[in-house]
Amino acid sequence: MQTHFEFELPAWVAPFLAQRGDIYATPEDRIALAIALSAENIKQNTGGPFGAAIFDAAGRLIAPGVNLVPSKNCSILHAEMVAIALAQQTLGRYDLSNGGKEIYELAASTEPCAMCFGAVPWSGVKRLLCGARDEDARAVGFDEGAKLNEWPEALKERGIEVTRDIERQAAVDVLNGYAKQQGTIY
Amino acid sequence: MQTHFEFELPAWVAPFLAQRGDIYATPEDRIALAIALSAENIKQNTGGPFGAAIFDAAGRLIAPGVNLVPSKNCSILHAEMVAIALAQQTLGRYDLSNGGKEIYELAASTEPCAMCFGAVPWSGVKRLLCGARDEDARAVGFDEGAKLNEWPEALKERGIEVTRDIERQAAVDVLNGYAKQQGTIY
Repeated sequence: MQTHFEFELPAWVAPFLAQRGDIYATPEDRIALAIALSAENIKQNTGGPFGAAIFDAAGRLIAPGVNLVPSKNCSILHAEMVAIALAQQTLGRYDLSNGGKEIYELAASTEPCAMCFGAVPWSGVKRLLCGARDEDARAVGFDEGAKLNEWPEALKERGIEVTRDIERQAAVDVLNGYAKQQGTIY
Repeated sequence: MQTHFEFELPAWVAPFLAQRGDIYATPEDRIALAIALSAENIKQNTGGPFGAAIFDAAGRLIAPGVNLVPSKNCSILHAEMVAIALAQQTLGRYDLSNGGKEIYELAASTEPCAMCFGAVPWSGVKRLLCGARDEDARAVGFDEGAKLNEWPEALKERGIEVTRDIERQAAVDVLNGYAKQQGTIY
């Protein structure tokens, strides 16, 4: 019976981030980081074409995430989930908002699947930025799951601001590049 | 920047399971284990009142799960997610069904929240057994998230058989016991 589980970000992530600043000032800067992580994750062959990151209200990077599903053999390790787990560990609490007092933001290279959508309110982030749309992921064969059609509104009702289509084409280009090189679709 | 994440089942889990057999023959036996894990998790003060387990088609326990949200400061570590991650690690693949060829089952002491609902299809389990209902969790203050009303049907459409209300009262008793001792609700 296994009782222990762990994951590690790929070794390329730390030097990749070290080349950049600590502050990502605009929503475009923050989504661009998530997209750059998704592109590098394919290039380095460390997972699927998805990246994410959590930032504080000043735009400071708290935790990056990349898809580790195939590399870690774990269906839970979508980029958003990796970023959430690392951000909560960094701050030492399971509610990033600290009881609603603090603003943290999740940037995702593609809109969250059904699982990650469900995970967003539990994480305590108060803003969600998205690059590619669900249908862009579906167009290259990924399944976003059975999600409420009005999922952005459902998050808004829970006090989470959603902004879509930020640098959408750049995010789509990464998905399309992955599909063209016949990456694993799961 | 933190790059590593890990969790460990509480130390009581292994001896707790060692007292029992390897095979849980009936759906009632399997849900009873999930409920027993939920009850012991409260008693030992290692997390919230939720337990889960993954079994193979013969009823053999592959991986247990308990809620580790408060103890690990991670909102992702619901009992179902813990069991899925450990089962996939045990079998060495992110699709438990192995391309649809094998039947694995997830038993959950309470019906899955929005996140865990979304995680079920990605895990490759082909059967879901549930004890307490969503409304039982809500009755003691837990939030199940924004989930499709017809979530069991959505899983069925994806080839996942759902059986509800197995040992429901026993599962509800654990939730109520937790609420009475004023456990953390999150």
